Amino acid sequence: MSATPRLYVAPDLAEGAEVSIEGDQAHYLTRVLRLGAGAPVRVFNGRDGEFDATIASATKTSLRLCLTGRVRLQQAVPDLWLLFAPLKKARTDFLIEKATELGAAEIHPVITERSDADTVRVDRLQRIAIEAAEQTERLDVPPVREAAKLGAILASWNPERVLIYADEAGDEGEKPWGGEAGRAKPMADVLKDAGKGSAAILVGPEGGFSPGERQRLRNLPFVRPVGLGPRILRAETAAVAALTLWQAISGDWKA
Amino acid sequence: MSATPRLYVAPDLAEGAEVSIEGDQAHYLTRVLRLGAGAPVRVFNGRDGEFDATIASATKTSLRLCLTGRVRLQQAVPDLWLLFAPLKKARTDFLIEKATELGAAEIHPVITERSDADTVRVDRLQRIAIEAAEQTERLDVPPVREAAKLGAILASWNPERVLIYADEAGDEGEKPWGGEAGRAKPMADVLKDAGKGSAAILVGPEGGFSPGERQRLRNLPFVRPVGLGPRILRAETAAVAALTLWQAISGDWKA
Repeated sequence: MSATPRLYVAPDLAEGAEVSIEGDQAHYLTRVLRLGAGAPVRVFNGRDGEFDATIASATKTSLRLCLTGRVRLQQAVPDLWLLFAPLKKARTDFLIEKATELGAAEIHPVITERSDADTVRVDRLQRIAIEAAEQTERLDVPPVREAAKLGAILASWNPERVLIYADEAGDEGEKPWGGEAGRAKPMADVLKDAGKGSAAILVGPEGGFSPGERQRLRNLPFVRPVGLGPRILRAETAAVAALTLWQAISGDWKA
Repeated sequence: MSATPRLYVAPDLAEGAEVSIEGDQAHYLTRVLRLGAGAPVRVFNGRDGEFDATIASATKTSLRLCLTGRVRLQQAVPDLWLLFAPLKKARTDFLIEKATELGAAEIHPVITERSDADTVRVDRLQRIAIEAAEQTERLDVPPVREAAKLGAILASWNPERVLIYADEAGDEGEKPWGGEAGRAKPMADVLKDAGKGSAAILVGPEGGFSPGERQRLRNLPFVRPVGLGPRILRAETAAVAALTLWQAISGDWKA
């Protein structure tokens, strides 16, 4: 991890500008890290790149940062969304953190028939995404969208965005080791055949998609069912694995 | 997830044999799941495949299972080890669970110069691996080895096992976005050029490897440094990403 604290802030950034820091971020800098005037910080806002800054003044509850110079130009992550069915709290938190590290451009909670939760605290998940973006050297923070029902999402889907559907956690009797019938192709093979355009990864809840949901997904022309190996992966593991494969094969992990 | 409980047990398994269940597993079946005589269970032991079983009798503290028939023959996971530097507790636990789901054959805690912890509760981590193996439909449980120092591990390494080294979290000034100098090749490219034999993935602590450790690793003929994209990944994310890519490209995720 970097030794210089890195903060996501709201205001416009430019060399010589001053930025105020309050609330949790001020607490973190002054009380946890015990930084005062003169200490170096880095800031980004998702629009203007990343800047070196110096703490100009500090009280217990607020700081002023002076931006000394831009160190990186703004750069977008690839256009990959993650759609996930809410899981138990710790596993959802983990998923948001990992999706941010792995460069998801947007995060969409999806309510499915077997979802473990119907409500999502979007503001809390957004804070987790901000902390992960600060940590992972991203220049933007993936927006966490309001939860929506799978049917509504599919009905209004832009068909130019390929929807990659992790066909995990099928119903009893559809085990991945039970035979080839109906088994999705390995994700690496599917990605090699697909174009390099906009994409989304959809991962279901721990209980899997219902037979009706799977049928509907498989009949849509923009959907690509993919397999993630012979073992049954938890939902958040499937999401991390699918994000990794997409970035490595179709995204920005190339040399 | 499967509706029928799946248990890892120690005894030999054969059709018609009886197996005793005690302790935490008995508590889970009788008190958490509230199962009694006649309920179906599945069992595996890492050697004899997987069996359907029926609860023959149950008290509050022990059960007898009768094995009704073998449903899967024993099958090994690919020969991929995970070597990781111990992290904070929750992140280490997560890593063990994910490594088991992603089919690591053995798990080796490694003490490095910047490790967050020098001691590892191997018995606790082994229990996490057992629970994850039960969940993920594996037929074996990856052994969690005793922690050893990186230098000692490298000194006695079998050079026929390729050691894939996630070159993440470098020192300040070696940021992945800072230029091409010394940057590792993308892991997907390295794997395409590598053979299909035995391998291990090595992931360092949050603070990264020391310059001396990195130098030593890069000079060893069996080591392959790999890159995992332009964002900085936490150690456990790097491990999950590297395990995923290896299984998808060199392991058993093929069609």
